[in-house]
Amino acid sequence: MRLHFYKYQGTGNDFVILDNRNNTIELTREQVAFLCNRRFGIGADGLMLLNPHPSYDFQMKYYNADGGESTMCGNGGRCLVKFAAEMGIVKSEYRFIAIDGEHEASIDSGGNVSLKMNDVSSVKSDENRHVLNTGSPHYVEVTENVMDLDVFEKGRSIRYSDEFKKEGINVNFVEQTDDADSIIVRTYERGVEDETYSCGTGVTAAALVSYHNENGYNFVNVKTKGGKLGVEYEKTDSGYTNIYLIGPAIKVFEGNIELPDTINFI
Amino acid sequence: MRLHFYKYQGTGNDFVILDNRNNTIELTREQVAFLCNRRFGIGADGLMLLNPHPSYDFQMKYYNADGGESTMCGNGGRCLVKFAAEMGIVKSEYRFIAIDGEHEASIDSGGNVSLKMNDVSSVKSDENRHVLNTGSPHYVEVTENVMDLDVFEKGRSIRYSDEFKKEGINVNFVEQTDDADSIIVRTYERGVEDETYSCGTGVTAAALVSYHNENGYNFVNVKTKGGKLGVEYEKTDSGYTNIYLIGPAIKVFEGNIELPDTINFI
Repeated sequence: MRLHFYKYQGTGNDFVILDNRNNTIELTREQVAFLCNRRFGIGADGLMLLNPHPSYDFQMKYYNADGGESTMCGNGGRCLVKFAAEMGIVKSEYRFIAIDGEHEASIDSGGNVSLKMNDVSSVKSDENRHVLNTGSPHYVEVTENVMDLDVFEKGRSIRYSDEFKKEGINVNFVEQTDDADSIIVRTYERGVEDETYSCGTGVTAAALVSYHNENGYNFVNVKTKGGKLGVEYEKTDSGYTNIYLIGPAIKVFEGNIELPDTINFI
Repeated sequence: MRLHFYKYQGTGNDFVILDNRNNTIELTREQVAFLCNRRFGIGADGLMLLNPHPSYDFQMKYYNADGGESTMCGNGGRCLVKFAAEMGIVKSEYRFIAIDGEHEASIDSGGNVSLKMNDVSSVKSDENRHVLNTGSPHYVEVTENVMDLDVFEKGRSIRYSDEFKKEGINVNFVEQTDDADSIIVRTYERGVEDETYSCGTGVTAAALVSYHNENGYNFVNVKTKGGKLGVEYEKTDSGYTNIYLIGPAIKVFEGNIELPDTINFI
């Protein structure tokens, strides 16, 4: 089977995207894993289908690099909005449906995509450790000198700890900089099972637990290994609302690939 | 600038290939590094140009992932022969010129590419450590349980040791299996500065120091992280001759990429 594909990245979090608006593409887990493999396939943190939907601009279907359908991916959502625009779905405000429900999004004049994330009402905190769900489950640990951390080893040990190993969790390490509005975040992602350059829902989770205005509007600048993102939201007594993840989403290349009849790469 | 590119791999050693037979492509070091970047570009261990040549079927120009022009790459050479064939240069025997001189090659009925490597006359050996040049400089260490080694750490420490740090060296660890004809090889590559799935000149170097017929014909089956290769050669009193590296070379995909005016990825 021959596929025409597109490759996008948002702060280094990279995705293979397929236009499935005519509903003809069905991929096995092995095929998705092959397409995401960086040596034997195209290579990406995840794969997305732009699916049609009767009530929304489109449906976002997201698979992790291991081929499993996954929970919400914030940078993926931002890239898929940019892709939809480049496919001719041009709106001032996008409405699409993903695994965690409805999302709104818009593209600014500089090409940055702002994606509305689901409200977050519950954060389980224990000193400098926080567990919350921003579309995907996240563990956030506030730390110092985050650039010196062994994120792979430390992240993996938390992700595979007794508490989290069954469902898995994404593990974020966040450092508050001298500027109250700015944090640095590094993330170990389940499914990828490695550190990624940037994780949108992880950046969102880290920003939420780093609020400086106890109530009302917050804007947090987030530095990741792959570049800069912004998170804005309102902190209320009952949680967080009007959460937006904002940043670049860039088409890198497009191409054609022949899916092998049998997938047997290493 | 818009480029049409091809992506090939040979036992997981992967390459961006550009058809430059009309001599119009000139890339800066930054552009090559961008194209080889796995998150912000296409992603590959190296980039090759199929260049025209007045006396040969083509010229092979090879760049490492860091953008520097590099010494010979065996798997790259095999992939470039397959690419030349798919571009319409169909020969029973190919003759091309690379940085280390002339090479012959052929493609068998199963699509495997056999590439003739330069003769090797000098091997500097010290017990289980060998240094030789098979088109690129290689350090080969015979070891046990090679699959359990920390190739990145151990390889890096040798590559950056006082003896080798200036010019750099590729570092191979080789295990002799119970079958006298078969070895397992893992390689840390300079330029990539990491372990790769397979290194053609490294596999060749490892096979040469693992001969079992003191004189005459040898065929060594080599298992790498990315799959299986074969090396055949004749051992003579003065060194090694008629050396061939044999294995798969596969087109994965092709596409178009717009080179950014300014390269400023992470």
